[in-house]
Amino acid sequence: MSPLDDYLKQHRDHFEQDLCDFLRIPSVSADSSHVQDVHAAANWVADQFRSLDLHTEMIETEGHPLVYAESPAVPDVPVVLVYGHYDVQPPDPLDEWTSPPFEPTVRDGNVYARGATDDKGQMLTHIKSAQAWMKSTGSLPVQLKYIIEGEEEVGSTGINTYLENHADKLKCNVAVISDTSQFARGMPAITYGLRGIVYFELFLSGPKQDLHSGSFGGAVMNPVNALTRLLGSLVDDDGRIQIPGFYDDVQTLTDSEREQFAGLPFKEKSFMDKLGVELLNGEHGYSTLERRWARPTLDINGISGGYAGEGAKTVLPARASAKFSCRLVPDQDPETIAASLRSWLEESCPPGIQSELIYHHGAPGVVVPLDSSYVAAATRAIEKGFGRPPVFIREGGSIPIVTGFKDKLGVDTLLLGWGLDDDNTHSPNEKFSLADFQRGIKASAYLWKELSGC
Amino acid sequence: MSPLDDYLKQHRDHFEQDLCDFLRIPSVSADSSHVQDVHAAANWVADQFRSLDLHTEMIETEGHPLVYAESPAVPDVPVVLVYGHYDVQPPDPLDEWTSPPFEPTVRDGNVYARGATDDKGQMLTHIKSAQAWMKSTGSLPVQLKYIIEGEEEVGSTGINTYLENHADKLKCNVAVISDTSQFARGMPAITYGLRGIVYFELFLSGPKQDLHSGSFGGAVMNPVNALTRLLGSLVDDDGRIQIPGFYDDVQTLTDSEREQFAGLPFKEKSFMDKLGVELLNGEHGYSTLERRWARPTLDINGISGGYAGEGAKTVLPARASAKFSCRLVPDQDPETIAASLRSWLEESCPPGIQSELIYHHGAPGVVVPLDSSYVAAATRAIEKGFGRPPVFIREGGSIPIVTGFKDKLGVDTLLLGWGLDDDNTHSPNEKFSLADFQRGIKASAYLWKELSGC
Repeated sequence: MSPLDDYLKQHRDHFEQDLCDFLRIPSVSADSSHVQDVHAAANWVADQFRSLDLHTEMIETEGHPLVYAESPAVPDVPVVLVYGHYDVQPPDPLDEWTSPPFEPTVRDGNVYARGATDDKGQMLTHIKSAQAWMKSTGSLPVQLKYIIEGEEEVGSTGINTYLENHADKLKCNVAVISDTSQFARGMPAITYGLRGIVYFELFLSGPKQDLHSGSFGGAVMNPVNALTRLLGSLVDDDGRIQIPGFYDDVQTLTDSEREQFAGLPFKEKSFMDKLGVELLNGEHGYSTLERRWARPTLDINGISGGYAGEGAKTVLPARASAKFSCRLVPDQDPETIAASLRSWLEESCPPGIQSELIYHHGAPGVVVPLDSSYVAAATRAIEKGFGRPPVFIREGGSIPIVTGFKDKLGVDTLLLGWGLDDDNTHSPNEKFSLADFQRGIKASAYLWKELSGC
Repeated sequence: MSPLDDYLKQHRDHFEQDLCDFLRIPSVSADSSHVQDVHAAANWVADQFRSLDLHTEMIETEGHPLVYAESPAVPDVPVVLVYGHYDVQPPDPLDEWTSPPFEPTVRDGNVYARGATDDKGQMLTHIKSAQAWMKSTGSLPVQLKYIIEGEEEVGSTGINTYLENHADKLKCNVAVISDTSQFARGMPAITYGLRGIVYFELFLSGPKQDLHSGSFGGAVMNPVNALTRLLGSLVDDDGRIQIPGFYDDVQTLTDSEREQFAGLPFKEKSFMDKLGVELLNGEHGYSTLERRWARPTLDINGISGGYAGEGAKTVLPARASAKFSCRLVPDQDPETIAASLRSWLEESCPPGIQSELIYHHGAPGVVVPLDSSYVAAATRAIEKGFGRPPVFIREGGSIPIVTGFKDKLGVDTLLLGWGLDDDNTHSPNEKFSLADFQRGIKASAYLWKELSGC
């Protein structure tokens, strides 16, 4: 057994004790009464780095601080940037927790506490793996740079500003984040694709004030009627989005990707039970995983107009509005789609209705090429840590920092998920499997080794 | 000059003084702090009848009382039922009144006060006309029955219950209501048609709770998307309603009616200015007056679903709902249309979406035949009172008591409008032209005479 493996084996209890110490700090970034706790968590992370003799900086922001650390440079091998966050979601509702959220408690091999998976436990695997290298061999096989933020649950303003202004400092060859999930229990995953987004808000107005629908109905266009007609025509019966040119740049799924998705043990029945639906549907011609991960969508996120009280009021409303957004897939350009939607609206808005379209924000989808040496390295490392190779999955949401790293640093991110999708992140009774915590540390330790050969 | 004409001429000032006395009573039916004032107004009306030696009853209801009165039977001539209401809308916002709402003030030939037109002033014309007959000749040419309510502004529960249970008492040959408007200044009108209504509320639900639109968008049907698709398809680009069979029973406009509407001096430009729109539109192939008065419509009255706060939230909502209603024209049956809508919904609701349709209420449209001897009598009476014959108009809204009289008493209603559409009913600075008040009394006095010949 190598000194590294020996260290990992001997320190399992220590790692878990450190995790529990970290989880005891109620670093709720959204709650200003916890501002000192949030700072305490940042200091706890910084102390971890200092104990390994890494160059460590506490970087103040307008919000909560960033913790930066770097290990010594290693010539001719990749520089690896590790991202994570030390802040946690609020624990409410407190009365639904079996054990208190900031008193980590082990049951059935899981540690229960707020932040167990998201992201303290997962992030800590990448610190403990460095500790194992430094303490067992005195050095790391690659240069590691850590950037650990405390505002992930409240919008990541500080890190985005820092990334904008200090890209040089974070210069690297590849980034690593563990803030996602395995595909299923015992199936560690590399998430290689994320969808992008364009988010809009549409305001329609007609008469200058609400009118009596009896006296005036039939005389003027009703803005709510117009809104349903416009939005109702944006997705056809086959689930195809009707914004002109919407699919022009869509990166199509390859046959091998489709085969790979189809090979995953996705249980539609239990997924439906979880959501409380009797049917899964969407764009025709694609499987549920394909639709969630690799096909664009259009969802209305909110709609309002007219009388919202009880009973019947015969009003012809003066105004109506809706928020709606598209999830984008790689090669779709948010700006192009926003422009096309705007043109379509100008042509389609009924006469007599004034429209205003707000483009809230946009971000492109990303995929990490699966044929890179970094992905191959991560695959080997995960096989070492978990005893089986990862599956390759995508995710329907966005992780904006991944786009930030791509745009500002020019690097791809390895999204290595040690969590499970029933870990109750953002809910009561958040948990993390301690076995997966140890496997994650081992996979991470081997990752540094494997990446050194890239 | 006949004794009747002489009486009308001699008592103009008295009539106006009585009107002002009536208007000073703040009989706001919606405001429980005014309950004594509402009773005072009922008593004031009852005293008017008593002073004419009419048989008078104060009929208690669960809400505000009804005032009933009847003059002696007159053999072989029609019995005429007069309806009106002594309650008024709340006067708010008070600071927008030039003179206080319950201190009647004359400016430029108009009396300004809450209730001036709606309906104290108009209703009083039918009492003062009886007074003129009784005081100048000692009798009336027809038997009059009055039913004057105090809940018209709050739902008319009392009179509807009374009508349900005591139709015998209100037995008559024709009803008369003055609670509408002239078509324009100096153009008294007989409103011979009202639209009906069917009012629905639709609830759609999908997943059991709101979902993240990134992780789940594309997997399940979004209830707000479904709602816009359903409602957006209910009216086509030509403004035609797509509920199956919706137009089957529509009473079509006759050429002579269309010519008559077209002959009215309806000013589209000033109508648009009043509504604050740049364009009037609706069902293709019909004029604005035709669309408002004699064609059915479908208006969404309110819609809601998903996130309604500020900014962008990426939610796939669990639920959505809308209130919507159709204005109906004569011969359309509300129940048939409700059933057709329900069938259409069952066929059209997308898979994966649960729907619930509430049918709030319905009432058919009505038209009074223009070729009746009652309309001819009213026409001659109005010409006597106003110096010119009335125009014949319809109204887009509903006056439910008209349907009640038709259903329970089997009689048509003569809707004789002395008000103007700029009288600010339900708004600050409500007014009524005193000249029209006097003309209305004279027209009413001649109406009793003319009806006696029917």
